[in-house]
Amino acid sequence: MKFCANCGAAVARRVPPGDSLPRWVCDACGEIHYQNPKLVVGTVPEHEGRLLLCRRAIEPRYGYWTLPAGFMENAETTGQAALRETLEEAGTVVELGAPFSMISVPRVNQVHLFYLARLGALEFKPGEETLEVALFEEAAIPWKEIAFRTVATTLRLWFADRTRGTFAFHAEDIS
Amino acid sequence: MKFCANCGAAVARRVPPGDSLPRWVCDACGEIHYQNPKLVVGTVPEHEGRLLLCRRAIEPRYGYWTLPAGFMENAETTGQAALRETLEEAGTVVELGAPFSMISVPRVNQVHLFYLARLGALEFKPGEETLEVALFEEAAIPWKEIAFRTVATTLRLWFADRTRGTFAFHAEDIS
Repeated sequence: MKFCANCGAAVARRVPPGDSLPRWVCDACGEIHYQNPKLVVGTVPEHEGRLLLCRRAIEPRYGYWTLPAGFMENAETTGQAALRETLEEAGTVVELGAPFSMISVPRVNQVHLFYLARLGALEFKPGEETLEVALFEEAAIPWKEIAFRTVATTLRLWFADRTRGTFAFHAEDIS
Repeated sequence: MKFCANCGAAVARRVPPGDSLPRWVCDACGEIHYQNPKLVVGTVPEHEGRLLLCRRAIEPRYGYWTLPAGFMENAETTGQAALRETLEEAGTVVELGAPFSMISVPRVNQVHLFYLARLGALEFKPGEETLEVALFEEAAIPWKEIAFRTVATTLRLWFADRTRGTFAFHAEDIS
């Protein structure tokens, strides 16, 4: 950030009065520009024991496999974000289950949230940001080609919970 | 948003190529300024069956009671945010438990997340944004003076779970 989004003057980085952290502050109009973590929301779509993954058609991690997920938008709920991203990236309408994993990634100022989900029909097709969509049994998961650690963690938690016979909610951090 | 934070030129509101939602776009430098929901994170601090509430010393809802909570900051985890806000607003170090409630509030582009928490010693004192800190039994909760619906919902869920004898994770929306 270099300029004030409110008045266009140059901003400075300092701790505002009464605050404890440095912010982008505009001395011309007084605006304080807070920056906060973003939510990335997605699903773990399951069909008869197999999980749906998407191969990324965009950077970062072009060509790697991921669960359908993306940045939550203003004016939607976390559940709506999960359904929208799954439709956009995998071309499929899932039946949404409970929230399953919530993983903080403070290094990139993100929190990743994945919902359990069920594929009704075997209907899916890659969206604009996806090269390929496919279903994988546990033994076929391409572990070395998973795009993000939050996705690998979520997949591991999912298979462990399936083995235990019950799906819980998991909160983790990746530091 | 009126000016580009990157180059200071005036921004326009339109749907960028390949996108489906209107964004603030800078035609001078090409920057797209995305705006996304914020996470508000806090705790439900319990001490021998009573819950700690804070009376707000700031707007909105000056003078109303709330659970300790606030905007998650960059570079922290959700758990760290919960502990920090509890220390800042209630002057107390709690033992953090599991995430308890996650409530989307799309009208204000927020997701509220509350953790279970336990007060060790009976040590607390109002922070700069708090008029008063106090412990309440269920019968004494000032339901008509609770600051936010997410807080009232979280308190109701907490007492219902205590009655059931087990605390679950709850995901809700306030529309």
